[in-house]
Amino acid sequence: MFYHELNSKIDYTRTNLRWNAWGANDQDFGRKAQMPQILELLKREFQLDTIRETPAVALEDIHLPKSKLSPADLKNLSSFVGKNNLKVDRFERVFHSAGRSYYDVLRLHTNKLKSFVDAVVYPQKDSEIIKILEYCSKNKISIIPFGGGSSVVGGLEVIKGKGQKAVLSLDTTRMAEILSIDPISLTATIQAGIYGPKLEHELNLKRYTLGHFPQSFEYSTLGGWVAARSAGQQSNRYGKIEEIIASAKLISPSGVVETLRAPAASIGPDWNQIIAGSEGLLGIITEVTVKLHKIPETRKYFGLVFPEIRSSLNFIRKANHAEIKTSMLRLSDANETRLYEYLGQLGKKNTPIRILKNLIQNAVLKLKGLEEGKKCVVLVGLDGSRLDVARSFEALKPLWQKAGALYAGEKLGQNWIHGRFNMPYLRNHIMQFGMGVDTMETSTTYDRLEDLHQAGLEALEASIPGSKAMCHLSHSYHDGACLYYTILFPMDEKKPEEQWLKMKKKVSDTFANHKAPISHHHGVGFDHKSWYQNALGKTGVAGLNGLKKVLDQKEVLNPGKLFHS
Amino acid sequence: MFYHELNSKIDYTRTNLRWNAWGANDQDFGRKAQMPQILELLKREFQLDTIRETPAVALEDIHLPKSKLSPADLKNLSSFVGKNNLKVDRFERVFHSAGRSYYDVLRLHTNKLKSFVDAVVYPQKDSEIIKILEYCSKNKISIIPFGGGSSVVGGLEVIKGKGQKAVLSLDTTRMAEILSIDPISLTATIQAGIYGPKLEHELNLKRYTLGHFPQSFEYSTLGGWVAARSAGQQSNRYGKIEEIIASAKLISPSGVVETLRAPAASIGPDWNQIIAGSEGLLGIITEVTVKLHKIPETRKYFGLVFPEIRSSLNFIRKANHAEIKTSMLRLSDANETRLYEYLGQLGKKNTPIRILKNLIQNAVLKLKGLEEGKKCVVLVGLDGSRLDVARSFEALKPLWQKAGALYAGEKLGQNWIHGRFNMPYLRNHIMQFGMGVDTMETSTTYDRLEDLHQAGLEALEASIPGSKAMCHLSHSYHDGACLYYTILFPMDEKKPEEQWLKMKKKVSDTFANHKAPISHHHGVGFDHKSWYQNALGKTGVAGLNGLKKVLDQKEVLNPGKLFHS
Repeated sequence: MFYHELNSKIDYTRTNLRWNAWGANDQDFGRKAQMPQILELLKREFQLDTIRETPAVALEDIHLPKSKLSPADLKNLSSFVGKNNLKVDRFERVFHSAGRSYYDVLRLHTNKLKSFVDAVVYPQKDSEIIKILEYCSKNKISIIPFGGGSSVVGGLEVIKGKGQKAVLSLDTTRMAEILSIDPISLTATIQAGIYGPKLEHELNLKRYTLGHFPQSFEYSTLGGWVAARSAGQQSNRYGKIEEIIASAKLISPSGVVETLRAPAASIGPDWNQIIAGSEGLLGIITEVTVKLHKIPETRKYFGLVFPEIRSSLNFIRKANHAEIKTSMLRLSDANETRLYEYLGQLGKKNTPIRILKNLIQNAVLKLKGLEEGKKCVVLVGLDGSRLDVARSFEALKPLWQKAGALYAGEKLGQNWIHGRFNMPYLRNHIMQFGMGVDTMETSTTYDRLEDLHQAGLEALEASIPGSKAMCHLSHSYHDGACLYYTILFPMDEKKPEEQWLKMKKKVSDTFANHKAPISHHHGVGFDHKSWYQNALGKTGVAGLNGLKKVLDQKEVLNPGKLFHS
Repeated sequence: MFYHELNSKIDYTRTNLRWNAWGANDQDFGRKAQMPQILELLKREFQLDTIRETPAVALEDIHLPKSKLSPADLKNLSSFVGKNNLKVDRFERVFHSAGRSYYDVLRLHTNKLKSFVDAVVYPQKDSEIIKILEYCSKNKISIIPFGGGSSVVGGLEVIKGKGQKAVLSLDTTRMAEILSIDPISLTATIQAGIYGPKLEHELNLKRYTLGHFPQSFEYSTLGGWVAARSAGQQSNRYGKIEEIIASAKLISPSGVVETLRAPAASIGPDWNQIIAGSEGLLGIITEVTVKLHKIPETRKYFGLVFPEIRSSLNFIRKANHAEIKTSMLRLSDANETRLYEYLGQLGKKNTPIRILKNLIQNAVLKLKGLEEGKKCVVLVGLDGSRLDVARSFEALKPLWQKAGALYAGEKLGQNWIHGRFNMPYLRNHIMQFGMGVDTMETSTTYDRLEDLHQAGLEALEASIPGSKAMCHLSHSYHDGACLYYTILFPMDEKKPEEQWLKMKKKVSDTFANHKAPISHHHGVGFDHKSWYQNALGKTGVAGLNGLKKVLDQKEVLNPGKLFHS
């Protein structure tokens, strides 16, 4: 029995991965057949005269400079890992020189990416990493640690450290084994380069789950999750990754930091919580011990339709304050609800019966005050024992009823589960037709949530005239929740990069003005650096940089990001 | 309605606090009248020929050196806080020169304490603290931040920094107001110098609770809890303090670090988790925003009697793995169970009916395999809605029944609640009669718990021949639990300090050999420094010291402790 339907058959052979788009070559958007209709919708919604084709540049045409590593460097580096595990070919260098943000993919598409790593190294052992770090520190080579490469915040932006001569990508995906499972304490010690599906599949075979399903799940690694403080879609039940880790091993140029395996301790600042969020600036995360759960006996995922945003936000807050066990409370605002409804209708034939059914359904919804353009869907996920799931359902019911919501059944939940990792593939297609799409996220306390929700939408739509913004609330807590925005817009034909930069600045300034963090689970990377530094303040930034300088004296690790100036 | 019976009437006027023992002058051990019987028990148990009196030295006789602060220093410091808030009198200096560990109290009793602070300053505003930090940094004066003064790990050991001329105690207890409550997000922003009872009482008046009740509750402060990563007795429900904090403000000599109010974020290493556990080395914690809970509708605290340690450990593990909501699962091992039974009998008249009742009770227990000397009591605490409490009780029942345990009723639970903050006062009395008592604690994963429990007991009893050690398990988690030891022993008449140091070393080495942390909730301070540094390793220690040197460039803050060399 497997926890969720997972695609555990992805072939991660490098050349099977798309170098300039989401996913593997043999994986695609589930509704690809309906792309013509989707494009028609976009044309209508954005009042476009025509859909223009904006094909991506070919790999051979990418302006890739010659590697700045000398033959001696390459020889030395390959001596640490074996000749086959040091790569300098075009595919490997380009693939490792960008993440999967709109901005990164856009620059790959348009041949505007300016910096590239000079080689890629694939170590398999701690001892190999130690040699690489030592060599690079001595020989002025910057290192960018690489997990799945799914960063959407410029975490992989190729920046050469001051006075350094080249940049090396350190790919961790050859370190991908589950080392041990402790069935008594319910923990597992796992190499950090493992991809999500393999990790979950192997745990599932022993009837365990990690329960960590970020949107990037299929193309991200355990080490990347920890480095960037990832959140899984069932975080209400399992916690963010920083709550899931029990201990970790970090290899820095100055030595190893390995935290103790203890359920809790009072031994100074928590090094686990320094490693989590370190985004490659302090060392290479090679092993992580995580808390496991038995695969839940059952699950129940269902939809609720609320009349508007306020009542749905209150429902989520009250469910958390009532301490009802949930795995997920995922609210789509009115705009996102409308988009998903449209996508849901796609490919269904408009038989007379269907049209009649829709008419009746809409009339009923209207009668209940659930109007198109205002109504919001909340997907509720419950996992656990049959008893716990039933009890949570019964405990939630009076809360949604009081809020004026309608129960919309389990089909919505099932559909969401089946399509949960599919949406990023849609971008691959629409970017071929002049459409841009990006996401950004923050979090705040309940008292500020409704205001910030609105301010974020307004900032986004004002930043790109003619754009459409929507939002969902994907993770919630005792004291607040995350807000996750999506913006869809026709690409600026002449200056698409500037268009994006302006949008990014506007929405990030808005988060900052509301004293909300620049990220809830994407991270800081390069793109968010200035907002991060402003919010943390100069003492906080300087302190972390002081810590870095001890661990990474030559400052070779992921230069120019987060707290590194 | 108040959450738990709390003593909110303690008078914290400095001269009403004991300078060399636990608590305030007008507070005492609840069974003081039974002290003669307790002493008799000790005589019998430890096979002593006689109970010898070991009275403490008087305050006037303490070898207190002259303050090393110059009249100019004193004048300048008092100009920052006002004349009345700079203290140099004997009481204040001695009171602020030690914590409440056995070792600290012993040295006060026997006039062996060697280092004393040179003055005590009581700031009331951030701006005053900034001036003090700046002045001390410029003028080579070490600073020891002081909350409630209840450290049991040498957190207040008076150590002068290298090249520094004097030591100043910075007492935070004049900063003790609840600044704001957010009823929507369920948080409160509170000044860090507030004592436990005032904090909880004022929240209770508004029907909230923090739910944080460490053993030191009556004489410790919010800032101290955060600085030392405190755990409250209901940590299963409310979490350790590091899970309760939502944000914090730290004033360092280099500037202020103030973390964002967000329920979760992905913005680099978590500064909240660097401030938590900083034990005064990085700055003064002046404000903390904490998560609140509504006062639970009801509570049910009851006892269970298990045949031996293994079955009771399994019960606690299974209750956690079954995700049953509990506030407390507090296991006393066989030795501790025996002591509490004895204390429970004290002062009760042995009427014929009582004797008969006891005989029958013992016969029943024996019949069930619950033998004296092996049986263990688990106190279960449930807080929440009536429904949740009833459900937890029903969910736990098959677990304890399967483990062969007997339900022992709510009286045990009630007694525990009423006496929960009382035990530390007992030490005040027995130390007057040649008896020593100390506690030490660690945590480990479930797979190692039984072994470590035994190893800790053996190490303790071997370290002081003729001593009696016992243990309870006071906090439990998904992957493990805390072990909390108490050792009782006749003081070495000639070398009581060496006796303690030997014991401390032996048990700490045992924890280290089992790869268990040197503390679960007491902290590191000075006493645990070498074990902490060994476990964290030189890179981890150096990294934190690098961070410290940025925030505290002159290294005036709590020198010589934790990661400071």
